[in-house]
Amino acid sequence: MAGPRMPGRNFLFVPGPTNVPDRVMRAMMVAMEDHRSSRFPELTLSLFQKLKQIFKTETGQPFIFSGSGTGAWEAALTNTLSRGDKVLAPRFGQFSHLWIDLAQRIGLDVVVQDEEWGTGASPERIEEALRADRTHAIKGVLIVHNETATGVTSDIAAIRRAIDNAGHPAMLYVDGVSSIGSIDFDMDRWRVDLAVAGSQKGLMLPAGLGIVCASPKALAANKTAGCARTYFDFGDQMKANATGYFPYTPSLPMLYGLQESLGILFEEQLVHVFERHQVLADGVRSAVAAWGLKLCAKEPKWYSNTVSAIMVPPGIDGADVIDAAFRRYNLALGAGLSKVAGKLFRIGHLGDLNDLMVLGALAGAEMAMRDVGIDVTLGSGVAAAQSHFRSTIMAKEKRPTEQERFAQMHPEGVFHPQRAG
Amino acid sequence: MAGPRMPGRNFLFVPGPTNVPDRVMRAMMVAMEDHRSSRFPELTLSLFQKLKQIFKTETGQPFIFSGSGTGAWEAALTNTLSRGDKVLAPRFGQFSHLWIDLAQRIGLDVVVQDEEWGTGASPERIEEALRADRTHAIKGVLIVHNETATGVTSDIAAIRRAIDNAGHPAMLYVDGVSSIGSIDFDMDRWRVDLAVAGSQKGLMLPAGLGIVCASPKALAANKTAGCARTYFDFGDQMKANATGYFPYTPSLPMLYGLQESLGILFEEQLVHVFERHQVLADGVRSAVAAWGLKLCAKEPKWYSNTVSAIMVPPGIDGADVIDAAFRRYNLALGAGLSKVAGKLFRIGHLGDLNDLMVLGALAGAEMAMRDVGIDVTLGSGVAAAQSHFRSTIMAKEKRPTEQERFAQMHPEGVFHPQRAG
Amino acid sequence: MAGPRMPGRNFLFVPGPTNVPDRVMRAMMVAMEDHRSSRFPELTLSLFQKLKQIFKTETGQPFIFSGSGTGAWEAALTNTLSRGDKVLAPRFGQFSHLWIDLAQRIGLDVVVQDEEWGTGASPERIEEALRADRTHAIKGVLIVHNETATGVTSDIAAIRRAIDNAGHPAMLYVDGVSSIGSIDFDMDRWRVDLAVAGSQKGLMLPAGLGIVCASPKALAANKTAGCARTYFDFGDQMKANATGYFPYTPSLPMLYGLQESLGILFEEQLVHVFERHQVLADGVRSAVAAWGLKLCAKEPKWYSNTVSAIMVPPGIDGADVIDAAFRRYNLALGAGLSKVAGKLFRIGHLGDLNDLMVLGALAGAEMAMRDVGIDVTLGSGVAAAQSHFRSTIMAKEKRPTEQERFAQMHPEGVFHPQRAG
Amino acid sequence: MAGPRMPGRNFLFVPGPTNVPDRVMRAMMVAMEDHRSSRFPELTLSLFQKLKQIFKTETGQPFIFSGSGTGAWEAALTNTLSRGDKVLAPRFGQFSHLWIDLAQRIGLDVVVQDEEWGTGASPERIEEALRADRTHAIKGVLIVHNETATGVTSDIAAIRRAIDNAGHPAMLYVDGVSSIGSIDFDMDRWRVDLAVAGSQKGLMLPAGLGIVCASPKALAANKTAGCARTYFDFGDQMKANATGYFPYTPSLPMLYGLQESLGILFEEQLVHVFERHQVLADGVRSAVAAWGLKLCAKEPKWYSNTVSAIMVPPGIDGADVIDAAFRRYNLALGAGLSKVAGKLFRIGHLGDLNDLMVLGALAGAEMAMRDVGIDVTLGSGVAAAQSHFRSTIMAKEKRPTEQERFAQMHPEGVFHPQRAG
Repeated sequence: MAGPRMPGRNFLFVPGPTNVPDRVMRAMMVAMEDHRSSRFPELTLSLFQKLKQIFKTETGQPFIFSGSGTGAWEAALTNTLSRGDKVLAPRFGQFSHLWIDLAQRIGLDVVVQDEEWGTGASPERIEEALRADRTHAIKGVLIVHNETATGVTSDIAAIRRAIDNAGHPAMLYVDGVSSIGSIDFDMDRWRVDLAVAGSQKGLMLPAGLGIVCASPKALAANKTAGCARTYFDFGDQMKANATGYFPYTPSLPMLYGLQESLGILFEEQLVHVFERHQVLADGVRSAVAAWGLKLCAKEPKWYSNTVSAIMVPPGIDGADVIDAAFRRYNLALGAGLSKVAGKLFRIGHLGDLNDLMVLGALAGAEMAMRDVGIDVTLGSGVAAAQSHFRSTIMAKEKRPTEQERFAQMHPEGVFHPQRAG
Repeated sequence: MAGPRMPGRNFLFVPGPTNVPDRVMRAMMVAMEDHRSSRFPELTLSLFQKLKQIFKTETGQPFIFSGSGTGAWEAALTNTLSRGDKVLAPRFGQFSHLWIDLAQRIGLDVVVQDEEWGTGASPERIEEALRADRTHAIKGVLIVHNETATGVTSDIAAIRRAIDNAGHPAMLYVDGVSSIGSIDFDMDRWRVDLAVAGSQKGLMLPAGLGIVCASPKALAANKTAGCARTYFDFGDQMKANATGYFPYTPSLPMLYGLQESLGILFEEQLVHVFERHQVLADGVRSAVAAWGLKLCAKEPKWYSNTVSAIMVPPGIDGADVIDAAFRRYNLALGAGLSKVAGKLFRIGHLGDLNDLMVLGALAGAEMAMRDVGIDVTLGSGVAAAQSHFRSTIMAKEKRPTEQERFAQMHPEGVFHPQRAG
Repeated sequence: MAGPRMPGRNFLFVPGPTNVPDRVMRAMMVAMEDHRSSRFPELTLSLFQKLKQIFKTETGQPFIFSGSGTGAWEAALTNTLSRGDKVLAPRFGQFSHLWIDLAQRIGLDVVVQDEEWGTGASPERIEEALRADRTHAIKGVLIVHNETATGVTSDIAAIRRAIDNAGHPAMLYVDGVSSIGSIDFDMDRWRVDLAVAGSQKGLMLPAGLGIVCASPKALAANKTAGCARTYFDFGDQMKANATGYFPYTPSLPMLYGLQESLGILFEEQLVHVFERHQVLADGVRSAVAAWGLKLCAKEPKWYSNTVSAIMVPPGIDGADVIDAAFRRYNLALGAGLSKVAGKLFRIGHLGDLNDLMVLGALAGAEMAMRDVGIDVTLGSGVAAAQSHFRSTIMAKEKRPTEQERFAQMHPEGVFHPQRAG
Repeated sequence: MAGPRMPGRNFLFVPGPTNVPDRVMRAMMVAMEDHRSSRFPELTLSLFQKLKQIFKTETGQPFIFSGSGTGAWEAALTNTLSRGDKVLAPRFGQFSHLWIDLAQRIGLDVVVQDEEWGTGASPERIEEALRADRTHAIKGVLIVHNETATGVTSDIAAIRRAIDNAGHPAMLYVDGVSSIGSIDFDMDRWRVDLAVAGSQKGLMLPAGLGIVCASPKALAANKTAGCARTYFDFGDQMKANATGYFPYTPSLPMLYGLQESLGILFEEQLVHVFERHQVLADGVRSAVAAWGLKLCAKEPKWYSNTVSAIMVPPGIDGADVIDAAFRRYNLALGAGLSKVAGKLFRIGHLGDLNDLMVLGALAGAEMAMRDVGIDVTLGSGVAAAQSHFRSTIMAKEKRPTEQERFAQMHPEGVFHPQRAG
């Protein structure tokens, strides 16, 4: 529907920023207020508590910075390491590449483990490298949980086991920017030391907050960490946060928005949020199969539930698909970056999404692909995803509730529902 | 994606209220102000001018009432007729029925011409009735331009010709609530005397304004019209409107919203707005054909570009389709009303819509139909609509612009673009 | 701060529309939805319940019309009376005048009791007129509770007693547009039959809703009332409202906004809302006294807690005060209407207001008065109001709570707080 | 008006965050979009151009960081200096103290010039120190243009002259966080090398953006600056900004809000914005004089047009004034920080403010002061400020326009208005 104005809603399927729900939009529309008032801590102290549920941690401490995920990357490293410290970091996409680059620029000695793009972090190679590091020179292992550039999710639990198997004391740093709030993330169980998140993905907010959660071990390391840091310093935050304040003026719309978006996640319940992302991602993947195309992710074990990177056939430029989708159909898809530029296009399927939004995007992708000469059957991907969505819903409606299952098993028992999140 | 919360956007495909564009939403977010200030007329006087472009009239006078289309129906009749006056009114759906009911309740003597639901006003029968009315007892002819209950558009130009052919002086009353702003409406060319619109359809606003446009003939009739009226009185409005005010407090958000929505329509240009509605409607109809279903509208000449009423197969209750769509897929479809209750469901395709929104809705309708046992092939309607949308866009991109066409025909000429709207 | 743009907030002190609180503004920012969905009644049914608390009625039935207070005036009369019915109506300002005019235009026979502007309805004269009406030809008594044009509040309880003393069965119609939600209004205790409200005053919403509450006696009268009515018909509303719907498309932003504004009133508690309006009005009146000026209201018993009409000295045009206030100080004051045009200016002090907002407005009024040659001492009115506000707050802080008072009186008792509203 | 809810608007008179105008609030309410789309640079490239007008620079380059003023402080220093570099920095309040602290923590060698709180940077001492620095070891001079803690504005033009007089090549770093957009700031004329701003003061936005403008000399220094930096790196920004993008996801609401707030400033015209701040500040200062109190700023030459720090009499705790103002009158005042804690309270008078807002705040401050035992006459400060505001407006209305002045001087000439900003 090309023209001077694009009527209707934009279908936003880049992997971030994601759609901001109306409820969050409303919550952000606040008059300014004194961030040093006696009332302000009510807001902030409860935010810190709720963030812990998002990271699934009891002992971790969350930090909220005005900034972005990149700033949170920097905060995680500079607060816990010193120039010259050695860290181990697999590289298998543009975002793992950029984190490594950042680490190098702040003076860390990065041992890079290159993996094929389309695969992820290798627990085996990590274990091996750590075992070889007898002197424990390696202070940290840096993993991008969900590599947004290739649509690959690495197995953090397996990496934790690798570190444990090697008996190595390195801290575990995880970039969860495009996983936290969408894909299960279990900080305490995986003993993640530094978890990094941003506001503009699963948290369904505009960009503008970089969030880091630090384990007690990380906080201990903070005391001796020699990297220069001021804006992103944990210490200044901890002092002010303890009573519900910030060391400098925080963004009120973002804090009130975060309060609402966390509320939405807890209402839906995290377990259902993750399940929804799984269903939507499976729908997209069944469409890709129906189109006869391949994902960049090499194997099902790498498949990401938040972004799918779809290889275009030889002779086709993925950028042309994206351009046609944007100009003609008001559909925003993600581009291939760096090594895979032109070779793929990406569908971000995370945040405040439902079946029909995804089906509309798939329909748009089909049209755009046809427009640039990719031989897909119109409606084929949509039909495959529809089938998947219907079967899931039917299954769900037939499925007994938790309470019903309990009643079947314990005819005499009293059911106590678990807390959300 | 059933559950305690419905993530993502609701797909709103009832034939009103329609989606309010973000720009209009923002424009409505105004602080209150003194509606008797010296500045206020800037807003209102320009609104009246712009509304004339929407009705396509030079000589008509628009009235803006806080109210709804029903109120505007009442305003059109009570301001121009007296108790006992005879009017002629075809009836072929729930909305033409309700307007007739309202006319009867205010004391008019309505000559009802019943037409089969799925057809519309018959110019032939109207001409015949008017010819038979030698004494010109009939003061008005009431036509619902677009019958929202059945998805039928009547031919107002043909009805004007019928009245002229009969040489009859009756005024022409047209309910354009679900046509104006979406389907071409040409008040001056068709010599409509009373045109009725509401805010919540093609004007892309919430409900809350009933708008009437009156021809000079209608304003003349106003002087002698004896029906009781106070809130909806043209006279009070005219007195206050002349200087840019209202006889009672107007709704500021609605006026500012109207200013923005008219701006959007003029930016897209009315001719393109109508064309877009045509394309989207054709897409929906091609989907219906692919599903092997029938419209309530009996023939292509009755097809509405703003709403399609789709007959469900025998043995199926249309309400079940609507229920499944709403509960499972966050898709709002319109119900069958009155005579056709349960026999159909309706897709409203008007207002701030684009291709992908419609495709998402079609995908949802397919799933909901399958869920209740209608044997449609998943993806089939989507594919048919996709084909149609692609061919239109391709044709458009190949089509020479107005200026290029001019240059081909008049190699020496100077091109003067016509005004929008 | 004259100039091309007026920086900062407008000080809105017209007696309606009033300031819309941010919470209500946010609540109004809703995406459109199907007003016939199975979920919709949750909203509407609770609104009707809450409105009853605002009118303080157990047995009354509230009606919500898209429209204005004028529409609600019409609804109250046409739904309960027939053409030619006699009603008694005191007239003492522009709004009582306009209601009488409306009543006459719908065909009622209005017995007008003119009272001096600056006074209000006279219970004595009403009792007298009703006693004289031996045949009970008078079907209703129409009272404007708070005459916005002169800042006069009439005593509805006294009028009820007057009717009772006369042993007359006439229904009691009360225009509470600028009182309900700001000044105590007790429908059941006063046995008001038709109470009329609008959204843009004490309810802190934009204009757009006319609200009527009808007693069982009024609903009985509805069955035989012969006035023509369709848009404003109680019957259509009752049928649809019973299950939580409306006979035509309602304004969703207004309904969601009303839900929030009622919530705000109940949180503050109506008794405190009324007390706040009393305090603010007393502050304004003490400023007027300090300026050496007089109110239009002749005696304290007529003083309105929502609007003060302030007489300007001879030789000064009140419109000039308003103009200077608006152009120079971004302050909107109300004008003198009709008989009192130019002789006064009005300060509306109702809705979402606090002490400092009123003090800012008083300061602005002082400057504007000086600018046009009224000899008031700058700061004098502000100081008088400050004194009043401080004494009230001090008194309040010293005042024992309800619970403390109870404990003093009933050392053994268990305190049961009353429900709000 | 103490109670469970605070009705009416909060009077926000802390020196940041400041009131966000409704227009900016609306502009921020945007759906998310792809920040890598082909359309996005339209927004960003124009923002950079407009920011240059705010800094009054032709050759400077602005950088927009998601962050705060603190982050912008860090960016200015780390991008242009190396660990161990010497800088000269006067200290005369909490914010100059904090910037020095930040400089020390990133490894700079800060030569601190302590000045009495209530005074500002001394051009004489700076010239002296630079003259003494024969080896040009000092790489930069750091000045807080407007010290928010004490309400003191330093004279940047004089400091530039001091540097020039000393013939010293040190770069000039200026913190304009609470001056830029409110007090004249002339980057090019003053040859400022690094100018630092935040979004939440004169730019009338929420906190969330740290903005730095760098001179060509600063950009040259960037090439060799050795401080570690990644998130705040100029280089990454320059690469992406050149084509209208950002190296990481920007905050869309803040960018759209900035576009609108800059538009508002240019509409009012910067010269009038500064003049308005001057008038409002003079009004506040005349109130302080009427109260018989003193400013923290020692002499008129130090008086700030954006914040006034008002000394409370001995025996009174400034925090009690602030507490009473907040709890009782919904008025937010600023606290005394560090050395002056308890000794003063601050009125921020910057951003989207007008006369009546200031008068309301002054009235509230008077009441709060009386409540805690400060013997001020109610209304006295208000009256003094009213007098000042009226005289300014009267003078302005009598003053000939620029065009009229031109006509007087050049009866034959053709007037060419200058561009805004």
